[in-house]
Amino acid sequence: MMEQHRLTLQTRGRGTYDITRQVRDCVRGTGLRIGLCHIFVQHTSASLVLCENADPTVRRDLEAFMSRLVPDGDRLFDHTDEGPDDMPAHLRAILTNMDLTVPVRDGDCLLGTWQGIYLYEHRAHPHQRRITLTINGD
Amino acid sequence: MMEQHRLTLQTRGRGTYDITRQVRDCVRGTGLRIGLCHIFVQHTSASLVLCENADPTVRRDLEAFMSRLVPDGDRLFDHTDEGPDDMPAHLRAILTNMDLTVPVRDGDCLLGTWQGIYLYEHRAHPHQRRITLTINGD
Amino acid sequence: MMEQHRLTLQTRGRGTYDITRQVRDCVRGTGLRIGLCHIFVQHTSASLVLCENADPTVRRDLEAFMSRLVPDGDRLFDHTDEGPDDMPAHLRAILTNMDLTVPVRDGDCLLGTWQGIYLYEHRAHPHQRRITLTINGD
Repeated sequence: MMEQHRLTLQTRGRGTYDITRQVRDCVRGTGLRIGLCHIFVQHTSASLVLCENADPTVRRDLEAFMSRLVPDGDRLFDHTDEGPDDMPAHLRAILTNMDLTVPVRDGDCLLGTWQGIYLYEHRAHPHQRRITLTINGD
Repeated sequence: MMEQHRLTLQTRGRGTYDITRQVRDCVRGTGLRIGLCHIFVQHTSASLVLCENADPTVRRDLEAFMSRLVPDGDRLFDHTDEGPDDMPAHLRAILTNMDLTVPVRDGDCLLGTWQGIYLYEHRAHPHQRRITLTINGD
Repeated sequence: MMEQHRLTLQTRGRGTYDITRQVRDCVRGTGLRIGLCHIFVQHTSASLVLCENADPTVRRDLEAFMSRLVPDGDRLFDHTDEGPDDMPAHLRAILTNMDLTVPVRDGDCLLGTWQGIYLYEHRAHPHQRRITLTINGD
């Protein structure tokens, strides 16, 4: 069994957006006993992260760290067509990845207790983001 | 063919732990001609890396670099519930990833000569870490 | 359906090399309606990135950023057997990853408009790099 789903997410600008429920709903619909769920964001300035899901300060600290590691408006960058967050967004996406695969067991994602799946918007302004889920298994 | 295996690893604290043999043993047991082996760590403060497997100084330098890039006790972080290595562990896991997929060929992982598969424990203290392998192919 | 292809790429030294066309050609040959294409580089000093494919300054800025983040010849590193770019190459590969999976739809890779697939050579000198594609689906 292999099937594909498209998700669309409207972001409110830079930050992490919990998509665990949407992903789980698609996986649960398949009733797979054993499998994999591949998640893919079709952009180069947004990414996917597995992150601690209990304490929101973890995601605030993640954003503080990424902002310091890849500073907006850094004079190192020549690619500034869309503003000071343009090139940093590409770099943050590359460092954190646009693809993610999680295991499936007994009709659900086999995540750790504290693992949530987040879309990470790296642009300052709101964007509409397309995500493709590909689920396969028995 | 798709099958799943659970591995448990007791770490002795921060550092890299070679799991190549355990992964290969699971793959060899399947006798797959062509396939994929997906490895997933069900935590947010440990991760998986492919790393040079011949010279242990590579993994020492990796740890030195990660410690400098994401310093323990950095005053940037608010999430310090479990100590100065708490938030750095989450960040190191995000930067290095919790999922990894390697190709399978003729009943073995198709790794490069110098590629080893390592669990990377990011917490200072020992932890028990759960890993799920999902192997599929023909 | 699951099949595997080997690609070999001769690099001219450090930098990004567009492999989107080679990957797409393999995927198109399979005629898959729904599937996944897993890409794997069998080395520890080269990696794979999804990157903006329209403006070459993005990839120049990526290289400038990685060179600053992981400086060649950094005195932190003990592993310098093959020169000042040896250990940085391993670290850059770990930070950007050696595996990548992209979705397949209607006989083609389902990439975003601006997503290209690049082999990232991290060594200063030219190398021959081996890549394995594993494509599966219906």
